[in-house]
Amino acid sequence: MAEHSVTVENTLQTLLADKKYSTIRDILVTMNPADIAAVFSGVERDKLPLLFRLLPKELAAESFVEMESEEQEALIRGISDSELRQVMDELYVDDAVDIVEEMPANVVQRILAQSDPQMRREINEILQYPENSAGSVMTTEYVKLSPGMTVGDAILRIRRTGVDKETIYTCYVLENRMLVGTVSVKSLLLAPNDLQTIDSIMESNLITVTTHTDQEEVAQMMSKYNLLAIPVVDGDNRMVGIVTFDDAMDVMEDEATEDMEIMAGMTPSDKTYLRSSPFDLFKHRIPWLALLMVSATFTGLIISSFEEKLAALVALTAFIPMLMDTGGNSGSQSSVTIIRALSLNELEFRDLPKVIWKEVRTAVLCGVVLAVLCFAKVMLVDRLLLKTEGVDAMVALVICLTMAVTVVCAKVVGCTLPMLAKKMGFDPAVMASPFITTIVDALSLLVYFGIATALLPALR
Amino acid sequence: MAEHSVTVENTLQTLLADKKYSTIRDILVTMNPADIAAVFSGVERDKLPLLFRLLPKELAAESFVEMESEEQEALIRGISDSELRQVMDELYVDDAVDIVEEMPANVVQRILAQSDPQMRREINEILQYPENSAGSVMTTEYVKLSPGMTVGDAILRIRRTGVDKETIYTCYVLENRMLVGTVSVKSLLLAPNDLQTIDSIMESNLITVTTHTDQEEVAQMMSKYNLLAIPVVDGDNRMVGIVTFDDAMDVMEDEATEDMEIMAGMTPSDKTYLRSSPFDLFKHRIPWLALLMVSATFTGLIISSFEEKLAALVALTAFIPMLMDTGGNSGSQSSVTIIRALSLNELEFRDLPKVIWKEVRTAVLCGVVLAVLCFAKVMLVDRLLLKTEGVDAMVALVICLTMAVTVVCAKVVGCTLPMLAKKMGFDPAVMASPFITTIVDALSLLVYFGIATALLPALR
Repeated sequence: MAEHSVTVENTLQTLLADKKYSTIRDILVTMNPADIAAVFSGVERDKLPLLFRLLPKELAAESFVEMESEEQEALIRGISDSELRQVMDELYVDDAVDIVEEMPANVVQRILAQSDPQMRREINEILQYPENSAGSVMTTEYVKLSPGMTVGDAILRIRRTGVDKETIYTCYVLENRMLVGTVSVKSLLLAPNDLQTIDSIMESNLITVTTHTDQEEVAQMMSKYNLLAIPVVDGDNRMVGIVTFDDAMDVMEDEATEDMEIMAGMTPSDKTYLRSSPFDLFKHRIPWLALLMVSATFTGLIISSFEEKLAALVALTAFIPMLMDTGGNSGSQSSVTIIRALSLNELEFRDLPKVIWKEVRTAVLCGVVLAVLCFAKVMLVDRLLLKTEGVDAMVALVICLTMAVTVVCAKVVGCTLPMLAKKMGFDPAVMASPFITTIVDALSLLVYFGIATALLPALR
Repeated sequence: MAEHSVTVENTLQTLLADKKYSTIRDILVTMNPADIAAVFSGVERDKLPLLFRLLPKELAAESFVEMESEEQEALIRGISDSELRQVMDELYVDDAVDIVEEMPANVVQRILAQSDPQMRREINEILQYPENSAGSVMTTEYVKLSPGMTVGDAILRIRRTGVDKETIYTCYVLENRMLVGTVSVKSLLLAPNDLQTIDSIMESNLITVTTHTDQEEVAQMMSKYNLLAIPVVDGDNRMVGIVTFDDAMDVMEDEATEDMEIMAGMTPSDKTYLRSSPFDLFKHRIPWLALLMVSATFTGLIISSFEEKLAALVALTAFIPMLMDTGGNSGSQSSVTIIRALSLNELEFRDLPKVIWKEVRTAVLCGVVLAVLCFAKVMLVDRLLLKTEGVDAMVALVICLTMAVTVVCAKVVGCTLPMLAKKMGFDPAVMASPFITTIVDALSLLVYFGIATALLPALR
C-alpha cells in the first residue's frame, strides 16, 4: 500500500508542477479515501486546497475524514466558507466530532458556523461526553423504526432516509424514545411477507451500552457479540446513538497501542511515530525514566549496606545482574499476562487468590528449572572453565537458591500489583515491567544478601 | 456481564438438580450465544448434551460456535450423529473450520461425516491454507451477482439465497469467476430505479487480499478502509472467499495479545489465562527465562574482569543497578514504540535512518535531563545525606556521563534491532524488552567501567 502511495505521490508532484489538473483528477477518482489522504500528506500544504477542489464532492469529504488533523486544519484555512459548508454537509456526525476535537478554537467556530443547525446541535451534544466514553465515539444518525410498522413500510423508510445514515444494516425500533428492539436489513429482506409487523420479527433481546461506558468495553462487547453496531442509551434508558464497527476497530487498535506504551513506561501519545518530534517523544518518555531512576536509589542503598560483605567475597557481585534480570523478566511475564487478561475482561478482582495460586505453582516450576540450570552453569562455566576466584559449591547453592526464591517473589508481585491497581481504579498497565523491575530488583538483592549471609562462613 | 453469567449459572445448577427443564429452556432462549457459552463452561461436562438439547436449533448452533474447544469436544462426544448433523447444517464454513482445527482426528472424522458434501469440500479447502493466512480465516459463503443483472434481480437473488450467507451486506460481482466489482445492499436499496443494471452502480475500485496475505494485514486493511468484509482472491485473481469484520476484530485482539506476550519474553498461547494450567504457563515462559539467564553470563564476565578495580572503589558497585535499569527502560521504550509502529504498518525498513536520527535526538534530550538529575541525586543523597564512602564529584561525573551515553546507546539499539529483525523475516516483537535489556546491560557496564577507568585516578 505505502509503496503504491509513494509512486502516485511522485507522479502527482510532477503533474502538479506541470499544471495537468484534469490528469490529476482522473488519477485521484480511481483511489480510496484512505489512500488519497496518504498521498495528500506528502504534498506541500499550500497546494492542498487546489488538489482538494479537483475531487468530486463526496470523495472530497470522505478523504477529508481520513486526513491527519494538521492537514485538515491547513485545508480548512485554505478553502472558502461555501466549500467548507459542502464538506460539512457530507460528513457523518461522529466524524465531524473527531475533527472538531483536534482543531483550535477559531477553526472550530468556522466549522460550526458552516454546519446546519441540527448537525451543530448534535456535535455540541457529543462533545459534552467524557473522553473515551461511548457517548464521545457514537454517531446520532441511525435508522429508527416503530414496532407497528410493516416490513414493507420499514424498507420504504430506509430507502427514503438511509442515505444520511452511517449504517442502515441494523435498524432500531423505538417506542417513546426507548429502544424496544433491533431489526437487521437481512431479516427485513428475508422476511417471508412484506405485511408482517416489525415487532413480530425484531430481536428484543438487547445488548446496549450507556453514554458513559468506556470505549474499550464497547469495542469488546461488539467483538464478543459480533455486532455491526451497538446502541447507546442514556441514564433514563432512552436511545441516543450507535457506535459502529469501524470505530470499534479503531478503538481496539488505539487501546492496544496505549497499553503497550504504558507497559513500556511511556505516557500514551495520539500521534504516529513518524509524526512525533523528538521533543514529543522526550515528553512522553522522560517522566517514567526519571521516576524509575530515582527509585533505583533503594537498590543502591541495599548494595551499599552490604558493601563490606561484598568486599569480603567480590565474586558475588558478578551474579547480581543475572539475578536481577531473571527476576525482572519473571515478574514482567506475569504482569503482562495479567494486564492483558484484565483488559480483555477475562479476569476480575475476586479471581486474585486463584491467580496467585496459579502463579505460585508456575513460579515453582520455573524456579526449580532455572535453579538447576543456574547451579550447573555456575559450577561448569564459572568454577571449572573460568576458575573465578571464590566460587565454590556453596556459592553456587546460594545463587541458585536466590534464583528460585526471586522467581517466586517476582511472579507473585507481578500478578498481584496489576489486579490491586485495577481494584483501586488505576490503569493496571502502569504496573508493568519497569515498575515491577524496580521492586523485584530490590527484593532479589535482599534475598541474595540474606541467603549469602546465612550460608557463607566468609560473610559472617 | 460476567457477574450476570454467574448468577444465571447458579440458578441453572439448581434448576438442573430439580430437573426443571422447561424453566431452563425459558431462561436460555432469552440469552445471547456468547453468554450461553459462558454459562455452559461452568456446567459439568456430562450435563452439557442435556442442556444443549433444550436450545432451539439455530441458537444451539450459534452457542456451539462461541464455546471453548474443550466444551465443544465434550458436546460432540455426547450427542448423536443426527444431532451433530443438525448443528453442522446451521454453521457457516469459517466457523466449522475453526472448530475442526481444534479437535482430535477421530472427532474431526465424525464432524466431516455429518457435514453435507459441499461443506465438507469447502472445509477441506480452507484447511489447506497456511495458519494465520487470509485463506484460513475466510468464509466461502458470500452473495454472488453478475454485472448484467438488474437491481431488482439482485434483491431477489439476495432474498432467495441470503439466509445461508454470513453477510449479505456486501455482494460480489463476478465475471468468469473473476471479481469485477462490489455492490452494497445500501446502494441496492437506495438505487433510484429497480431496472438499473448492477455494473452501473457497482464499485469497481477494488480492495482485495490474496489467500496467503497475513491475517494481521487483512484486519488492518479492513480497519483502514472501514470495510465490513474484504474479498479474498487466489493467485489467478479468481475470487475464493471473504473475511468478515467480526473475524477481523478477533484477529486484531489476538495479534495484539500475541505481540504483548512475545514482547514480555513468552511464546504466545491460544488459551485464556484462567484456562491455562500452571504447566501450560511454565512451558510458554521457561524458554526465554532460561535463554536470558544464560546470556546474562556476559554481564557477569564483564563485572568479573573489572573485579579488582571494583574492589578498589566498592562504592561504584552500588550504582550498577540504577545504570542498568535506566538503560533497559530507555531501550524498551524505543523498541516497544518501533515494534508497534511496524505492526501497524506505520514504518518500513527504508525509514531506518530517519528513525535512528529521531531516536538519537530524543535520547540526547532524555540523556541530558537524566544525567543532570542523576548528578544532583548522587551529590545530594549519596554524598551529603548518606555520606557514602568514596563518592565525590568525580564519581558523580562518571555516573552521570555513563547515564547519558547508556541512554543514547540503549535507544539506538532499541530502535534498530526490531527493524533489522523485520527485514530478516523475524517477528520484531522478539526484539523487545528482555532481549534489549540483556544487550543494554552489557553495554552499560562496558561504558561505566570504561569511563570510570579513564577518569578516576583510584582505578589506574
